[in-house]
Amino acid sequence: MKKQFLFGLHAVKAALKNPQRKHTALYVTDKSHKTALAFKGTLPSVKVISLKELEQKIPSQSIHQQVVLETTPIAPFSLEDICAQAKNDATIVVLDQVTDPHNVGAILRSCAAFGSIALVVTANHGADTSSAVLAKVASGALEVVPILEEVNLSQTMDTLKEYGFWCYGLDEEGEETLGKIKLDGKVALFFGAEGPGLRRLTKEKCDVMLRLPTTDQFSTLNVSNTVAVALFATR
Amino acid sequence: MKKQFLFGLHAVKAALKNPQRKHTALYVTDKSHKTALAFKGTLPSVKVISLKELEQKIPSQSIHQQVVLETTPIAPFSLEDICAQAKNDATIVVLDQVTDPHNVGAILRSCAAFGSIALVVTANHGADTSSAVLAKVASGALEVVPILEEVNLSQTMDTLKEYGFWCYGLDEEGEETLGKIKLDGKVALFFGAEGPGLRRLTKEKCDVMLRLPTTDQFSTLNVSNTVAVALFATR
Repeated sequence: MKKQFLFGLHAVKAALKNPQRKHTALYVTDKSHKTALAFKGTLPSVKVISLKELEQKIPSQSIHQQVVLETTPIAPFSLEDICAQAKNDATIVVLDQVTDPHNVGAILRSCAAFGSIALVVTANHGADTSSAVLAKVASGALEVVPILEEVNLSQTMDTLKEYGFWCYGLDEEGEETLGKIKLDGKVALFFGAEGPGLRRLTKEKCDVMLRLPTTDQFSTLNVSNTVAVALFATR
Repeated sequence: MKKQFLFGLHAVKAALKNPQRKHTALYVTDKSHKTALAFKGTLPSVKVISLKELEQKIPSQSIHQQVVLETTPIAPFSLEDICAQAKNDATIVVLDQVTDPHNVGAILRSCAAFGSIALVVTANHGADTSSAVLAKVASGALEVVPILEEVNLSQTMDTLKEYGFWCYGLDEEGEETLGKIKLDGKVALFFGAEGPGLRRLTKEKCDVMLRLPTTDQFSTLNVSNTVAVALFATR
């Protein structure tokens, strides 16, 4: 079975409460042992190891708080299932080739905070959704918001439209301004990577292209900030 | 004279155009030499060095694009001067002990994008404003938005109020919801570090405490996302 290593107090605590995961072991040090025993949820065998051994399990320079969980990844979700259960004011975020795990982790956290029902990422040229860095930055949101990896965003948009989602793309050159028009009903928000932005075909297929109400001098934000603003504006 | 090393194409290009800085040298490699010669502005002597020598001038693992500028920091600004010139719809962002240069850099960029007239940070227990990482993440915004380092935020708030600024603090437990009330006139927005939030005295002195319209399950965002959302809501 595929393994995933999660680290950091928030990410590990949230994962322990997720019944969809099967945990193999919780690695701690002498220092973090007591903290770990106070965790709630299905606690696997707790293994006290040295700091050096613990750090070998995860990317270097990770802020791990001396807690690493070995667990299974969450089983993949289907877009159809999620769309079928979507309420009339549901929001879905779609990322077109955004790869940086820090950005995708922060975006997942915004999705949780603003109640998005899913985050869709591109399966190729997208973020590694089993990344421990992503899980850490998401600060527990990985257990709350399903991530879907889709190969073909054009088909994704077809499915979303079939289920009544209105598809908005965010882009510097969008014809409408975010905050000036009301985003009602089921909303899917599409974002591209910083620099290249949304790919041409994705843009052409969106129902409406939106831009942020920024100054002329400085027209773009970091992608995770753009998503947070768009989700706020959608509520 | 104090020196500052900036790196990355955006940050260096923007700094070269800033007449307030005095540049000593522009370090490039064989590979980036041609790119650097196309830069506009007051170009200092261009020095072609090895990649290894270039990387010794800046923090390790920096995304430098093989371009490093040695320059002077921008001269400090005074809060009074900035307040005296503030228009009736001016916005100022104040950070209470936010230290992470990635966050502060991204926040500076949001300030530039949404037209804030200044960013105030705490002089002690605040971000290092001469940090090259901050400059890189700010992506040129350091040349557009003045950063002020203030020792005493209580006095800062007194000054802001004297000049007609309405002081809003952002906090999970704020009594009003961002987006539900209109933020008119001159606005100062106060944000604390993730985890501790705003300090008690800062909170008590704010005119109104605001919270984000987030779900109960997930009530906080990353601080740079919170600032972006608040700036959007203020426009």
